[in-house]
Amino acid sequence: MRTGVWLIGARGSVAVTSMLGASAVRAGMAEPIGCVLESPELHSDALPAIGELVFGGHDISSVPLVKKAAALGEAGIVPARLAVAVQDVLLEIEQDVRPLPDHGTQAEVADAIGADLDRFRRRHDLDHVVVINVSTTEPAPPPHPAHADLDALHAALDGPEPVLPPSALAAYAALRAGCPYVDFTPSTGARLPALDALARAQGLPYAGHDGKTGETLVKSVLAPMFRMRNMKVRAWSGTNLLGGGDGANLAEPAANAAKSASKQRVLRETLGYTPQGETRIDFVEDLDDFKTAWDLISFEGFLGTRMRMEFTWHGCDSALAAPLVLDLARLTAAAHRAGRTGPLTELAFFFKDPLGEVPHALSEQWQVLRAAVEALG
Amino acid sequence: MRTGVWLIGARGSVAVTSMLGASAVRAGMAEPIGCVLESPELHSDALPAIGELVFGGHDISSVPLVKKAAALGEAGIVPARLAVAVQDVLLEIEQDVRPLPDHGTQAEVADAIGADLDRFRRRHDLDHVVVINVSTTEPAPPPHPAHADLDALHAALDGPEPVLPPSALAAYAALRAGCPYVDFTPSTGARLPALDALARAQGLPYAGHDGKTGETLVKSVLAPMFRMRNMKVRAWSGTNLLGGGDGANLAEPAANAAKSASKQRVLRETLGYTPQGETRIDFVEDLDDFKTAWDLISFEGFLGTRMRMEFTWHGCDSALAAPLVLDLARLTAAAHRAGRTGPLTELAFFFKDPLGEVPHALSEQWQVLRAAVEALG
Amino acid sequence: MRTGVWLIGARGSVAVTSMLGASAVRAGMAEPIGCVLESPELHSDALPAIGELVFGGHDISSVPLVKKAAALGEAGIVPARLAVAVQDVLLEIEQDVRPLPDHGTQAEVADAIGADLDRFRRRHDLDHVVVINVSTTEPAPPPHPAHADLDALHAALDGPEPVLPPSALAAYAALRAGCPYVDFTPSTGARLPALDALARAQGLPYAGHDGKTGETLVKSVLAPMFRMRNMKVRAWSGTNLLGGGDGANLAEPAANAAKSASKQRVLRETLGYTPQGETRIDFVEDLDDFKTAWDLISFEGFLGTRMRMEFTWHGCDSALAAPLVLDLARLTAAAHRAGRTGPLTELAFFFKDPLGEVPHALSEQWQVLRAAVEALG
Amino acid sequence: MRTGVWLIGARGSVAVTSMLGASAVRAGMAEPIGCVLESPELHSDALPAIGELVFGGHDISSVPLVKKAAALGEAGIVPARLAVAVQDVLLEIEQDVRPLPDHGTQAEVADAIGADLDRFRRRHDLDHVVVINVSTTEPAPPPHPAHADLDALHAALDGPEPVLPPSALAAYAALRAGCPYVDFTPSTGARLPALDALARAQGLPYAGHDGKTGETLVKSVLAPMFRMRNMKVRAWSGTNLLGGGDGANLAEPAANAAKSASKQRVLRETLGYTPQGETRIDFVEDLDDFKTAWDLISFEGFLGTRMRMEFTWHGCDSALAAPLVLDLARLTAAAHRAGRTGPLTELAFFFKDPLGEVPHALSEQWQVLRAAVEALG
Ligand SMILES: NC(=O)c1ccc[n+]([C@@H]2O[C@H](COP(=O)([O-])OP(=O)(O)OC[C@H]3O[C@@H](n4cnc5c(N)ncnc54)[C@H](O)[C@@H]3O)[C@@H](O)[C@H]2O)c1
Ligand SMILES: NC(=O)c1ccc[n+]([C@@H]2O[C@H](COP(=O)([O-])OP(=O)(O)OC[C@H]3O[C@@H](n4cnc5c(N)ncnc54)[C@H](O)[C@@H]3O)[C@@H](O)[C@H]2O)c1
Ligand SMILES: NC(=O)c1ccc[n+]([C@@H]2O[C@H](COP(=O)([O-])OP(=O)(O)OC[C@H]3O[C@@H](n4cnc5c(N)ncnc54)[C@H](O)[C@@H]3O)[C@@H](O)[C@H]2O)c1
Ligand SMILES: NC(=O)c1ccc[n+]([C@@H]2O[C@H](COP(=O)([O-])OP(=O)(O)OC[C@H]3O[C@@H](n4cnc5c(N)ncnc54)[C@H](O)[C@@H]3O)[C@@H](O)[C@H]2O)c1
Ligand code: NA
Ligand code: NA
Repeated sequence: MRTGVWLIGARGSVAVTSMLGASAVRAGMAEPIGCVLESPELHSDALPAIGELVFGGHDISSVPLVKKAAALGEAGIVPARLAVAVQDVLLEIEQDVRPLPDHGTQAEVADAIGADLDRFRRRHDLDHVVVINVSTTEPAPPPHPAHADLDALHAALDGPEPVLPPSALAAYAALRAGCPYVDFTPSTGARLPALDALARAQGLPYAGHDGKTGETLVKSVLAPMFRMRNMKVRAWSGTNLLGGGDGANLAEPAANAAKSASKQRVLRETLGYTPQGETRIDFVEDLDDFKTAWDLISFEGFLGTRMRMEFTWHGCDSALAAPLVLDLARLTAAAHRAGRTGPLTELAFFFKDPLGEVPHALSEQWQVLRAAVEALG
Repeated sequence: MRTGVWLIGARGSVAVTSMLGASAVRAGMAEPIGCVLESPELHSDALPAIGELVFGGHDISSVPLVKKAAALGEAGIVPARLAVAVQDVLLEIEQDVRPLPDHGTQAEVADAIGADLDRFRRRHDLDHVVVINVSTTEPAPPPHPAHADLDALHAALDGPEPVLPPSALAAYAALRAGCPYVDFTPSTGARLPALDALARAQGLPYAGHDGKTGETLVKSVLAPMFRMRNMKVRAWSGTNLLGGGDGANLAEPAANAAKSASKQRVLRETLGYTPQGETRIDFVEDLDDFKTAWDLISFEGFLGTRMRMEFTWHGCDSALAAPLVLDLARLTAAAHRAGRTGPLTELAFFFKDPLGEVPHALSEQWQVLRAAVEALG
Repeated sequence: MRTGVWLIGARGSVAVTSMLGASAVRAGMAEPIGCVLESPELHSDALPAIGELVFGGHDISSVPLVKKAAALGEAGIVPARLAVAVQDVLLEIEQDVRPLPDHGTQAEVADAIGADLDRFRRRHDLDHVVVINVSTTEPAPPPHPAHADLDALHAALDGPEPVLPPSALAAYAALRAGCPYVDFTPSTGARLPALDALARAQGLPYAGHDGKTGETLVKSVLAPMFRMRNMKVRAWSGTNLLGGGDGANLAEPAANAAKSASKQRVLRETLGYTPQGETRIDFVEDLDDFKTAWDLISFEGFLGTRMRMEFTWHGCDSALAAPLVLDLARLTAAAHRAGRTGPLTELAFFFKDPLGEVPHALSEQWQVLRAAVEALG
Repeated sequence: MRTGVWLIGARGSVAVTSMLGASAVRAGMAEPIGCVLESPELHSDALPAIGELVFGGHDISSVPLVKKAAALGEAGIVPARLAVAVQDVLLEIEQDVRPLPDHGTQAEVADAIGADLDRFRRRHDLDHVVVINVSTTEPAPPPHPAHADLDALHAALDGPEPVLPPSALAAYAALRAGCPYVDFTPSTGARLPALDALARAQGLPYAGHDGKTGETLVKSVLAPMFRMRNMKVRAWSGTNLLGGGDGANLAEPAANAAKSASKQRVLRETLGYTPQGETRIDFVEDLDDFKTAWDLISFEGFLGTRMRMEFTWHGCDSALAAPLVLDLARLTAAAHRAGRTGPLTELAFFFKDPLGEVPHALSEQWQVLRAAVEALG
């Protein structure tokens, strides 16, 4: 099954680590560590192999992929020797990474995006193209009546004013071009009633939101632990220090707010109440892609005795995200082929802020994922 | 269902916190936080209520329960006001706490233990008496051929030399007296082929080993997280600093070894391999019952990138253990009534070193427990 | 030497812990742990003894001292039995805690404050009265031309508009009444040119700002360590989680800003440059007076190798502050008697944001303090 | 001043990082970060420059320096590009790294070591040669009467049985050859009365023991902090996890004991009492040269309130040690030239287990060092 992966933000850290890593795995130069679908329990012949993925994408930056890969190597995010070894493959992918269309009305931009997707599909003779958003996190957009109605949306996009934030416009364009859409960021993406309607009308699935790679991942196993033991979490405070392009952007209050909100949801959903405390994201340029999160949990046990737990997570964000991007591409392509439409709620395992009324405990999400993979055959 | 709880080590911290806490909950002076069976998902009318538990036990110490409770209050392990408020109840329980018999052959000691259990049952007209070992952790005993065969064991116990360590002798006596046996410690308990045979012959269940209250509890959710995400744990090192009577004893190399071994099992069983690193237990008198555990986990993600996680757990050991002792008493009594015999492998949720070939991931253990509670009706 | 200690914010946690602790030490019920002047190296007969301190103060709250002390006991900030044992002494001090005057122009308020100070001095026949501000932290005040000139200030205070923030008005009143002034908070206090002129005109010393009790204390030894070892600190980020009255107030952005600024000064002054990173203060009601600070330090060693250090500080803020308040009262009274006027820069050891161009490394501040105590004779 | 640096253990991590780093600094390819003598306060023209150091040494391994440097580069201990850039210099130094003599009696071995030192000095026309031990830590040797008396030692070395552990034999040989001796390890080195006598007889200085690069460095500023604030440290427990050649060796109980003892001395000396708790060293191969130390400090403040601090140190041991080795070579050469003999107690700043009755607080050690550097002229 030849599967295209079209990355919005194709020149960013997550995107380039994904491309580089898939190439290294295909070439037998690296193990697919962190790729969830490579666990024996999740094997399925219905899934395209990592080696079958073909990459392309849009970006507003023009830094060459090879240069970005070298920078990732120097920063220790990927092994420097791999960045060198896959240069040729990156040069090929470079042919399919195009500047984000930006001329005319939003309807015209969407058409141009769709045309790029068609060209990519034809050029590589692909069975499916999955569009995945790994671009910079946007602030939440102002509400607009056309968000709720597909016809109104079609009409409004023809007007001179922007109606959709970039992520939603990409989703619109993807769905219209017959491509499933996955949002790895907390941005709006396909999460609008009008776009849900479009997906269903087109018979396409979509997924999101916000890849779960660090602090929230840990929360999604620790919060259930407290619940299973019937202990009372009184306060849970988190601090995330991160550099890199993502960190710089999240230092903007609006993007920060979007992200912090998705990070606390797991507590409320798992515990059934919201403990005191907040989640902070601070930009510390020097840390680059190596994020440090520190959480303090204050809890109450038998007879009210107060206890505490704290954890520190020193993770490399792109190395954590990239294998999940590959997983999501493969799962979404297979779901598309299997005829699934609308939100892929069975992929909650991958997201901080999953679509639908789904379990937030990681182990329950895993059971759901496993059942979904089995159902693929 | 009037249920007796006979505690070996009845004057220790865990025992007295259990008695005091059950009394406070019955009197409406405290919430049953940390009592797993009080979660809505685990409700069952087949379980005796906390208020229906009647306490007694053996100990080699003679410190009055009221005095021990006051000490627990002063150390902040239980609220000082509760220690005062339940004095009368503790004075009543004091009538049923007896010196551990120690005269004659081990067969004679077992008879004397059995006689104490019978008296306790009759005095309170109890439907079931569950014997729970919460006494000092023993070193692993030297092997003895009679451990493997019930007839040989009966014979050997009549000899002048001790054959069984105290915990196993208590299990032997309990089973002979028709009482299920639970071991909350890492000691031998009923974990010998001869005693398994005795339990089955008597139609009795037994359970264990080693209450899971801190570092291992956290491991049992974090190790599955790494496995589910298909990341490779390279090293996992733990340090446990604890004071209290238990800490003093665990400073003995032999007891320490017994405990450290039960603490690492979860990694091997969950991950499928054994990462580098060890688990240490150090005695720091000053910390009293407030344990601090620190773990460093070094793991490998996509393309071999190295990452780290560390956590610190500041728990109050008796406050963590006592509600589980109450849960175990209730579950074992109900299992007895339901006719279960042999090892209660469905209680793995509660133990560091559970009996049988069982899952070690906490969420799977919870599913098993939930099914078992449902099966009780 | 009978020494009066007049506390602005006399019903707050720091104030009541100071009063209660001084009483307990005098009665031989507690050791003066944390009182710096009780170190053998800092002994001086020129200092009043802890037992010679007499307490009074102003507050805008009317919660009785005994009730506040009981609350501190219940929260574990002071031993509950001490809160009971010194009730009588607190009832006596209650006579000298008065509502903060608030009628009329600021000149009139200052007069009323001065009258309260005089009454206190006469009633107890005190040699010196030191006024110490331990009230709620204020936001930074808007600038006003009269802040720079004493005559202009006298004139402006007669007007209908407030010219000084409460802390500076208290300093003005204290200095006019012949009392040295110490500011334990980051508020303005005597830190205005007009008030410095007043202090010199009156022949009085003053001191401040912002007691150094936790994260900054640790910084003041770790930052010099990095400097002495000639390593390069690249980023230093801090998170402070605190509850209590102080925490609630610091959650206000303006007060938070005042505090965060004093907390970072030590880095710039000690290292000679400002590393990346910020200091955050978050309010977590549940933590009460037990603050948790977590700092991550990212540094560079030989050949650019990156390394990290992190620390967590779990301190009880009032227990850390109160002994320093006693030290400051004793030192300032002795300095007054010794004829010192203007800023007591030799007390930098005690403050996050010390007056003057002084060393910020703790050990250097200690040398300066030691020399100053010796000079007292 | 052309200064030779003869490293015992010349093919180890610390040694090769020192050589490589000095070469890179000389070539202007790296900043001398972490070199204490490069602080402006410690500048002295009496010190040889880093670029004037000439390297040689002994080892029992025969791994080429270039290969070891490449391995350090791959492990991220030194920048990979520097390991490549200084290959030529390392090839030159290779000429002066010789197998440790091991034939005949210890007297004969000492003569052979001395001959190697002479050849090195002549070959490079060196003013001074400082011998520095950076080889594997030895277990403490059995006592021997000849350790106390120089004549007895001369005699005993002629016998067939070894009298001195390798480090002390190296010190003996160095001193006889007119070279000052520095021990960067916790091994015996020159720390025997007979060798002290030899140093004085030869008019030579010596220094040691055990480079202070991580946990103990932090202790040497935190312990004084608690003392200066007159707080009571109740317990201080440390865990050191380390890999690398040093870690493997320290996993041996005897070497571990030697090291753990030097690590606790700072507490007793600084606080005036020994808190509870121990320091552990555990070998975790996977961590390689990146050590993680975690310490928990439990302390008591005003009115007995209990508080806690913990820190984690993630350091690269060789990157921390190498600049100190350069500092020690330069200081010891200058001290030699200045005519100093016997133990250089003014170098306590650099060591966990310094010679003589010296301060253990880092800032006091720094004052002493600074005065000593000034005295050099
Ligand atoms: N790495 C993780 O662990 C993780 C987890 C969850 C979510 N995310 C999200 O993934 C996204 C990518 O992270 P990153 O570290 O690769 O960031 P990055 O800054 O390295 O890359 C973002 C890329 O998006 C491009 N871009 C910006 N606006 C665009 C637009 N309108 N259209 C197309 N391209 C655009 C940028 O030019 C850049 O190349 C972020 O939104 C981040 O929040 C990352
Ligand atoms: N608290 C926890 O979190 C936890 C978790 C798992 C296991 N455990 C185990 O529970 C046990 C109890 O812990 P604790 O903190 O109450 O210890 P403790 O020292 O306070 O109490 C142990 C009691 O056992 C008594 N005892 C000793 N030998 C005995 C014997 N042969 N027969 C009868 N009584 C005897 C002692 O006199 C003492 O009263 C320990 O073995 C501990 O390892 C505790
Ligand atoms: N505890 C520490 O470690 C520490 C360290 C440095 C600075 N401080 C500062 O010390 C101050 C006191 O801290 P706390 O924990 O006792 O706070 P708190 O909230 O318990 O007490 C403050 C008291 O000040 C009173 N107050 C408010 N405004 C007043 C005014 N205008 N005049 C007189 N009284 C007034 C309040 O009614 C309250 O009783 C805070 O400003 C805090 O930032 C504390
Ligand atoms: N790195 C630090 O932060 C630090 C701090 C204090 C002390 N130290 C000490 O420095 C020493 C070196 O550490 P490392 O990390 O370089 O270790 P390493 O294992 O990398 O190097 C030790 C070298 O010594 C050689 N050696 C062993 N026995 C010898 C002998 N008898 N004569 C000559 N050479 C011999 C080995 O072959 C090896 O090449 C260790 O003793 C360590 O404890 C290191
Ligand atoms: Na920590
Ligand atoms: Na930590």
